[in-house]
Amino acid sequence: MSITILRTVDAWWTSTPSGAVPIDTDAATTGELLAAPERIEGARAGAVVVPVESLELVSPVTAPCRVVAQMTNFGSHVRDAGMDPASIPLTFFRKTSGSISGPYDDVICPERVRFLDYEVEIGIVIARELPVGTEITQDNWTSYVAGLVVTNDVSARDLQLPKTQFFEAKSYPTFTPVGPALVLLDEDELKRFADLRLRLWVNGDLRQDMTVGEDMIYSPLEALQALSRFQRLEPGDLLLTGTPVGTALSAPPRPVEIIGNLLPAATKWKLFFKRQAGNPKYLHDGDVVELAIATDDGAIDLGRQRTVVRSAR
Amino acid sequence: MSITILRTVDAWWTSTPSGAVPIDTDAATTGELLAAPERIEGARAGAVVVPVESLELVSPVTAPCRVVAQMTNFGSHVRDAGMDPASIPLTFFRKTSGSISGPYDDVICPERVRFLDYEVEIGIVIARELPVGTEITQDNWTSYVAGLVVTNDVSARDLQLPKTQFFEAKSYPTFTPVGPALVLLDEDELKRFADLRLRLWVNGDLRQDMTVGEDMIYSPLEALQALSRFQRLEPGDLLLTGTPVGTALSAPPRPVEIIGNLLPAATKWKLFFKRQAGNPKYLHDGDVVELAIATDDGAIDLGRQRTVVRSAR
Repeated sequence: MSITILRTVDAWWTSTPSGAVPIDTDAATTGELLAAPERIEGARAGAVVVPVESLELVSPVTAPCRVVAQMTNFGSHVRDAGMDPASIPLTFFRKTSGSISGPYDDVICPERVRFLDYEVEIGIVIARELPVGTEITQDNWTSYVAGLVVTNDVSARDLQLPKTQFFEAKSYPTFTPVGPALVLLDEDELKRFADLRLRLWVNGDLRQDMTVGEDMIYSPLEALQALSRFQRLEPGDLLLTGTPVGTALSAPPRPVEIIGNLLPAATKWKLFFKRQAGNPKYLHDGDVVELAIATDDGAIDLGRQRTVVRSAR
Repeated sequence: MSITILRTVDAWWTSTPSGAVPIDTDAATTGELLAAPERIEGARAGAVVVPVESLELVSPVTAPCRVVAQMTNFGSHVRDAGMDPASIPLTFFRKTSGSISGPYDDVICPERVRFLDYEVEIGIVIARELPVGTEITQDNWTSYVAGLVVTNDVSARDLQLPKTQFFEAKSYPTFTPVGPALVLLDEDELKRFADLRLRLWVNGDLRQDMTVGEDMIYSPLEALQALSRFQRLEPGDLLLTGTPVGTALSAPPRPVEIIGNLLPAATKWKLFFKRQAGNPKYLHDGDVVELAIATDDGAIDLGRQRTVVRSAR
């Protein structure tokens, strides 16, 4: 059965029906916590119970860790851009783990960024060492997954598109809010991965709403198989699995992109962002971004994240 | 004056005119070694001297560490593709540090890779903590640089181009040969960065030959300034600074690229690699790749790297 892990600055907790119970552990990192599952289990019998609402939660995934993310991994997102999901290769990029922030922290928009965007994503937290060359199969993949978290893959589109490499545009501090909870799932629960529904609201307006099953291109099994060929992973590392349609950036339809490619790059992007300036969906100072990921029957619930955008300008 | 650091599996050495002298240190990582400069200095007075040729050298940069690389950073490389160097943004991507290998180790071409390419690059090894937000200036940038290494940014072009994100294509084990030496440089020596000449040979054929001064677009100062806005760095981390013209992949001239963009992506890349199959410059089993980086007057010399390509097929 799932176990919901919470973290405050100086303690780890499990969430129970009667409230949060502290875990008897000195773990400084998520990896260390996961290395002693008996401590996590033991917390269920603990005497101290406090209301979850009284806790000031921070990210249940600690930095430093590896943060690897999948590029375009939802069919709706691809079709929205006039492309064929079957033509999209399984592709990864890195984010800094310095971009990780808490589930209720502000998202800081850097001074020079004008087109700040959101992407609700399921984060997979790695359970055990996964050296390069590990054979990942249908039968063993769940043993490498400790649990899941809600993440927002915050993206500065005006850096991301002209630079082509996504690393910087998605790596500024507070560009990866994580949590509220790390929900540890057993094998049977992980097999319900396709039933998870991702939702994101901006100021109460529902922008993203899709289940994995109707839309994800590459499954966690396929992603871990591909990743294990070149990227060592360790307990507490984080894999982001892509976002469905509904971000502020609606990729340019293919005919527009083709015409754009006739222009010098600088001119192309200048025109593109001139058009985007009329798009009201990008994030602005004071915007409230809420994210929730759960199965529709509520059997698996990763919780609800709520952040406020603050401009550094 | 520069100090040349070498590393074997169980020891660190400095290279002197009379041979290699062991450093009295328990450092397990490059970062730990750099934290005790007095130990490195002390080695100069050591009694034990062995011929450098008798040492089995491994990479002087230890993993895990952060490996950050600059995209297109030499004007010749950009002009070769029919583009304007002034239009190229300062762009970074990540490589896994698991890709680091020794200066004389084999470079293993993964089974499915057909277009393996080379890129000689100067690697900057970070000297001290560089938290996000650090102000890097003309006056202080050299204090963040411990020294320089020869690196080969090995690239699987058939993964890199269709995936667009460079991370995987440059991250397989042995895709970042480093060394032979980590050459520690003082401030005056680092100011001769522009005088460094990068050269790379395949089977004795000189393929790349360019100085930083005639060709580099963004200097280490500009790179560190940009990076410090979003990427924390620590002692022993590695920044690759880009490669000049001469790689096997000659980027498609702009008119060809524009026509290519009219095609569906899968068709475009199929045609592109069909053409590349006739390009004899890609690396094959048994090819010997040699790299050297030094000033023409020999005052700064990072040494000569020699690797042999082995196909996993």
